[in-house]
Amino acid sequence: MPPPIQLLPPFETVSWSPTERALRVLDQRRLPNAETYLDIRTLDELIDAIRTLAVRGAPAIGVAAAMGLAVLVERELQLDAASAERTRDAATRDTLHARVVSLASAIETARPTAVNLRWALQRMCKRAEHERAEQLVSALREEATRIREEDRAMCHAIGQHGAPLISQGAHVLTHCNAGALATAGIGTALAPLYVAQSRGVSFKVFADETRPLLQGARLTAWELQRAGIDVTVLPDGAAASLLATGRISAVFVGADRIAANGDVANKIGTYGLALAARAHGVPFHVCAPSSTFDVQTATGAEITIEHRDASELATFGELRVLPDNVDVYNPAFDVTPHSLVTHYITDRGLLRPPFHD
Amino acid sequence: MPPPIQLLPPFETVSWSPTERALRVLDQRRLPNAETYLDIRTLDELIDAIRTLAVRGAPAIGVAAAMGLAVLVERELQLDAASAERTRDAATRDTLHARVVSLASAIETARPTAVNLRWALQRMCKRAEHERAEQLVSALREEATRIREEDRAMCHAIGQHGAPLISQGAHVLTHCNAGALATAGIGTALAPLYVAQSRGVSFKVFADETRPLLQGARLTAWELQRAGIDVTVLPDGAAASLLATGRISAVFVGADRIAANGDVANKIGTYGLALAARAHGVPFHVCAPSSTFDVQTATGAEITIEHRDASELATFGELRVLPDNVDVYNPAFDVTPHSLVTHYITDRGLLRPPFHD
Repeated sequence: MPPPIQLLPPFETVSWSPTERALRVLDQRRLPNAETYLDIRTLDELIDAIRTLAVRGAPAIGVAAAMGLAVLVERELQLDAASAERTRDAATRDTLHARVVSLASAIETARPTAVNLRWALQRMCKRAEHERAEQLVSALREEATRIREEDRAMCHAIGQHGAPLISQGAHVLTHCNAGALATAGIGTALAPLYVAQSRGVSFKVFADETRPLLQGARLTAWELQRAGIDVTVLPDGAAASLLATGRISAVFVGADRIAANGDVANKIGTYGLALAARAHGVPFHVCAPSSTFDVQTATGAEITIEHRDASELATFGELRVLPDNVDVYNPAFDVTPHSLVTHYITDRGLLRPPFHD
Repeated sequence: MPPPIQLLPPFETVSWSPTERALRVLDQRRLPNAETYLDIRTLDELIDAIRTLAVRGAPAIGVAAAMGLAVLVERELQLDAASAERTRDAATRDTLHARVVSLASAIETARPTAVNLRWALQRMCKRAEHERAEQLVSALREEATRIREEDRAMCHAIGQHGAPLISQGAHVLTHCNAGALATAGIGTALAPLYVAQSRGVSFKVFADETRPLLQGARLTAWELQRAGIDVTVLPDGAAASLLATGRISAVFVGADRIAANGDVANKIGTYGLALAARAHGVPFHVCAPSSTFDVQTATGAEITIEHRDASELATFGELRVLPDNVDVYNPAFDVTPHSLVTHYITDRGLLRPPFHD
């Protein structure tokens, strides 16, 4: 069955370079000040782009790694062909596969804890297993393209299931960036907004700036503005009083991991937002692909929370904003208990816990 | 009755310059990077220091305005005396008083909404009313010193009433800066901490960084570290998950205005913090001088909230962090309903609403 016609974002976070054998990524380090694209041709460039957050968001990283791996293999084989015909002849199926696995392992080191990164690379390696040299490049390109298309279809499906929850004139609040910039498609938490917009629904978005890395201010505001959606940015601490005004119709957030009982690990600040939404009777929706549901984890209490570097709070560009040697509490994620979640909006529809395989 | 022996902060936010006729303020614009003091000698310097937040916090502004007015009058009279004896002779009681009032009006324009600023200046003008030229300077110095001493006594009293709420080994969470830097004494929300420390109680403080102006990171962390108190800074969005860990014993915040029913207007982010404290059964204390209780305002709904400039969210030093032309929701304060407050810690003891004259 062919995939349905999909809504695409107004820019391409991850794509094939149209002019040469390269992976093209929208350089998110330079947002919101400049919309520039990086063409990536080498392993070092790919690792650097992932590590320095030129490309970010679990789904987008997985897609970039898969497409990047295909590009790297293609360029190596091309180089071989140009230098000596015998090299290609010597490249048996096994040695070629070993080379693909070796490149994949190197890419994976860029962000070792990113589950989608590992998953996408494993899938690429598996595909390479049974291909002969002549077909290897086209097979890897095909697999990477498929991973990207699946990601786009997943985003679109989340959008379709979530869009009916956004009424004409709605005021939607979101946190961090779970948008097109975090995926190859129209995002997760922002997907329902893009679909609602395509259906002619008019609404307004409020975006928490999301300290410490300001993904809401730098990225969500940029992509919504770019798409012609009315967006207002607020400090994270202003969300509770905004909810108290009664102006917010619903909150939409993404998720990094969802436990079997429905507890949600997501960007720091999500839990406080969920408490404030509940205090004012505002629906709180979590948007995530099925792959985010981790049925091996019984509850949120079992989720290990990554703590990030003090420098994220201590400096701002060149500006130092903390005294030297002050301790910092800087968890990357928090856990929102399932009792605070109104709907889990997934590519398979609106789900309720407990979640099973 | 002489005032009791008071605890003084480890630095002087507002003082008389020891070397000449000048007002000395700790320049908070340069914190936490440098502890420097400004000597203020002219009206323009005084207005600039208040307007650009070199000196900030309602009580500290009131004290600085009163002391600054005394300095300005003294310098004018000194100048007159040096230039021509007849000028002083001509300075009748009425013309001198008119000059004091005129200077006070000019100072008041620096931050027109600051209630303490107006109150302190009115008190100085009233004191000047019945003084002859020969006594005017010493009378104004005396009145300004008295305003400062009363502020210190108020801080100390809040500290004494609040200190018993901090047990050995406590973990205290605070928001913004309601400390020594905001008063002439040991602060309001931080006063109980300083008194507890002086009594040998050992505890740990967590300080919300407090976007957008980062008073928690820049000021609270600096003054607590300066006083030898263990302090850890967190993004505002991390407070709810920190409370969820069960590590926090109590929250202490200041107040900008308290309505007759006990609703509290304070720095943006206070309300969300109060909701999270309640969700985890953590006591939430509001520390404020009696003058903060506004019995003319029935409830928090009547308090007009100042909205501040978009530039506070759009840029950081030289760095632009928001796209151009994105709307910003940037209220300076929020309102915490009285039902979320455990204790109102005032210079008159622990009070409960409704509040009367």
